[in-house]
Amino acid sequence: MRVTLGQLAVRHGCELRGDPDLVVDRVATLQRAAPGTLSFLANAQYRRHLATTAATAVVLGRDDAADCPVACLVSSNPYLTYARMAAELHPEAPLAAGVSAAASVAADAVVPASCEVAPGVVIGAGTRLGARCAIGANTVIGKRCVIGDDTRIMAGVVLYDGVRVGERCLIHAGVVLGADGFGIARDARGAWTKVPQVGSVQVGNDVEIGAKTTIDRGAIDDTVIGDGVKLDNQIQIGHNAVIGNHTAIAGLAGVAGSTRVGERCIIGGDVAIAGHLVIADDVVISGSSKVTHSLEKAGIYSGVLPTEDARQWRRSAVRFGQLDDIARRLQRLETLLGRKEGKEP
Amino acid sequence: MRVTLGQLAVRHGCELRGDPDLVVDRVATLQRAAPGTLSFLANAQYRRHLATTAATAVVLGRDDAADCPVACLVSSNPYLTYARMAAELHPEAPLAAGVSAAASVAADAVVPASCEVAPGVVIGAGTRLGARCAIGANTVIGKRCVIGDDTRIMAGVVLYDGVRVGERCLIHAGVVLGADGFGIARDARGAWTKVPQVGSVQVGNDVEIGAKTTIDRGAIDDTVIGDGVKLDNQIQIGHNAVIGNHTAIAGLAGVAGSTRVGERCIIGGDVAIAGHLVIADDVVISGSSKVTHSLEKAGIYSGVLPTEDARQWRRSAVRFGQLDDIARRLQRLETLLGRKEGKEP
Amino acid sequence: MRVTLGQLAVRHGCELRGDPDLVVDRVATLQRAAPGTLSFLANAQYRRHLATTAATAVVLGRDDAADCPVACLVSSNPYLTYARMAAELHPEAPLAAGVSAAASVAADAVVPASCEVAPGVVIGAGTRLGARCAIGANTVIGKRCVIGDDTRIMAGVVLYDGVRVGERCLIHAGVVLGADGFGIARDARGAWTKVPQVGSVQVGNDVEIGAKTTIDRGAIDDTVIGDGVKLDNQIQIGHNAVIGNHTAIAGLAGVAGSTRVGERCIIGGDVAIAGHLVIADDVVISGSSKVTHSLEKAGIYSGVLPTEDARQWRRSAVRFGQLDDIARRLQRLETLLGRKEGKEP
Repeated sequence: MRVTLGQLAVRHGCELRGDPDLVVDRVATLQRAAPGTLSFLANAQYRRHLATTAATAVVLGRDDAADCPVACLVSSNPYLTYARMAAELHPEAPLAAGVSAAASVAADAVVPASCEVAPGVVIGAGTRLGARCAIGANTVIGKRCVIGDDTRIMAGVVLYDGVRVGERCLIHAGVVLGADGFGIARDARGAWTKVPQVGSVQVGNDVEIGAKTTIDRGAIDDTVIGDGVKLDNQIQIGHNAVIGNHTAIAGLAGVAGSTRVGERCIIGGDVAIAGHLVIADDVVISGSSKVTHSLEKAGIYSGVLPTEDARQWRRSAVRFGQLDDIARRLQRLETLLGRKEGKEP
Repeated sequence: MRVTLGQLAVRHGCELRGDPDLVVDRVATLQRAAPGTLSFLANAQYRRHLATTAATAVVLGRDDAADCPVACLVSSNPYLTYARMAAELHPEAPLAAGVSAAASVAADAVVPASCEVAPGVVIGAGTRLGARCAIGANTVIGKRCVIGDDTRIMAGVVLYDGVRVGERCLIHAGVVLGADGFGIARDARGAWTKVPQVGSVQVGNDVEIGAKTTIDRGAIDDTVIGDGVKLDNQIQIGHNAVIGNHTAIAGLAGVAGSTRVGERCIIGGDVAIAGHLVIADDVVISGSSKVTHSLEKAGIYSGVLPTEDARQWRRSAVRFGQLDDIARRLQRLETLLGRKEGKEP
Repeated sequence: MRVTLGQLAVRHGCELRGDPDLVVDRVATLQRAAPGTLSFLANAQYRRHLATTAATAVVLGRDDAADCPVACLVSSNPYLTYARMAAELHPEAPLAAGVSAAASVAADAVVPASCEVAPGVVIGAGTRLGARCAIGANTVIGKRCVIGDDTRIMAGVVLYDGVRVGERCLIHAGVVLGADGFGIARDARGAWTKVPQVGSVQVGNDVEIGAKTTIDRGAIDDTVIGDGVKLDNQIQIGHNAVIGNHTAIAGLAGVAGSTRVGERCIIGGDVAIAGHLVIADDVVISGSSKVTHSLEKAGIYSGVLPTEDARQWRRSAVRFGQLDDIARRLQRLETLLGRKEGKEP
């Protein structure tokens, strides 16, 4: 899509410093930009590439504008402004409406004519798609599912029976929604009996779910993903978890069963949150943290050990197991010294 | 399914306190129960919802019976009793026997007439299914596989050639059984040569495998999953691992190659167990623990740091790297004080 | 495949101690070997099985040769030599060239007659396969992809539009290449806007990618996997990451966005590497380490706490949060004692 800097500035409410008639038709990084591209600066780590960029224009914050060698679009939130301009330059391909002859759609499923259904798709009885949905190749949608308008499901996704997904969602390849939660009860001999998982999964509007993420159906009530939630790849959400509106979770993280995560939380990659906890609204948890108790106040939480030289690490790790002993010995020392101090004039 | 409390009490060997003619037809949580539902109390965290429940009956332990405002079924293991009653109230849908016209089944594969094979299923040459198997849409079963009676495989599963699965198993969407183990040999220049993975995977009876879990084929001998094992979602089991009977593993955990996990172990979510270890029978490992050495005795093991306020965490993490130094300085102090103490009258 | 020990010794440049006319036709572990098998000893942990092996021959290092009760093939790198001999004894099945009638291949896709395309495969417009590719059942390859000669893609894989894969690669079941990276920009109210992900994924030659691994497409430039890289199962590689040639990464690991990993690195299972870092060539990171800063020199790094008895662990974990306090108190003590020491004659 070709657009002038003047058009971008007006539509996105930016100050333009430069020629409004210059044209851009795609995005580029500062380092690899060529004429005709729009770039952005939102992370200080990349500021060193600004002086030499060959972009036609750069979206950036006020403080960086003076250092920009080319035209710039000044924004108080340059990453957000860039995101919107990039979406304008790179619009999604339009749907190719219609159902592939190589799809298997149940006779009573509702598939509006505006939907695109790819080869190998299987749609079960009683399922209803909204308008303008796109269903990728070899995706399987069970019985009695409901999918909202304008939702796109990529290839190789599986929705179990009864799953409900909202409008304008984007579900990436390999996602599984609604598999049984891990509910098992143990008998006296140590053998397990399956606990039937009769709830379902409810996904709100404007949700994105990354490749291979799994969200289990509820044991009794539903597992709930709020509006505007963004999940990265290979996340596991346990049965009856609730993820609040506009919360974002990075890859490889896990939220165990019955935990309630608040709204607008930001949860880093590889974070594990134990079951039956409550995480407040506006909590930020840094990557690889392991959360074993509820976090009742908004704030930034962290719990991961940085990587050390392996030899020093092994020494420290050994000492870690002695910490309780160390602290007790220190206490003894202090008491002892205190007594001695007291005796001395 | 409609059933009276009297019938439930008799069939499941419970004491009934209440009217045996009351009818329940589905399960509910204590909080959301309505008349006609059966609920349960097995986790003390939810006891506060007992007094106000609108369930028709509650399965619970003897100590909670007096506080129950409605009929109750008293059990020494209420969660197990609930699991069995829930299975009675919510029976699985019967199979729709037959092979879909949109499935691709090798001419010499054995598929009994009692099996249900969904659209898009691919079954390779020489594979044999037992009676009453259900194979979900777009699942791929390789050549020379053997599947036992009454096993259900959900949608989008892949079994590589030669994998064997027992009876009454439940394999969830997106599982991969029998991909090559991670066997690579390094040459002097640092390049890798693949080590052929010629073993297979053997899954016992009554095993449940969660969505997206992967179990690699053995390098030479087989990878073995024992009877009654329960695996949650997104678990990785390396080549030649052996998981003992009735062991349960929660989501996102990993067991590296050639490790032998005992029987009746309970392994938490996000646990990582290194390769070539032995884990004894009846070991419990709490969530997010990282196991780097064999655990030779039954017991409860743990190895994860709880999440702290981020600023305090960073201070502590810095100190963690100084722990060896701290311990040595403390020792020096104690020796010094000891000498001084000895000198003092 | 049947082969004599003499042939193996000559072709693989080994010293043979034993009868060159003995024949082997498959591999076996030392413990389970039977006559006719070739075994190997490369890990000291398994040396105890050498004395009683029933293998016809064993590949091993010079130091173990004297203890070998049967014929042996002496190598300075027995695991590598074994890998090559095993590949000779267990050659891959030849391709069954041709496109299944149950595949959906775009009219303008290029699929050479030497390729094998299984049932349920979907190949998009403008995609080109090299010679002798094998595409497994129900795999989906998007539009404008390029796959090199002799690459095998197993069942249920998804390649998004525009992904490029080199020659002689092996991509296991359930892999997703080219899903959108996790690029989201936040507005003042805490809601997220998607950042278009317009880059792609470039995979080099001789790469193996394990089951269920996901590699995201770049935000602007491509995500790049170098030649000879070996990735295990369930790994997540973020957008714009670069993995250097001949680096190996074990299962469940994650590399976050824009991180550059060097060449010939060995990264253990469950390792998490944060985003925007640089990892030098020849870095080794032990399993479950969490890497939060760049590692600028070759070396061995580690950052994981071993598993402890649960009670001791809880005590230590409590003390861990007090470490800063402990260190300060210790410092005070030392200062105090130093003053006192100075005062004493």
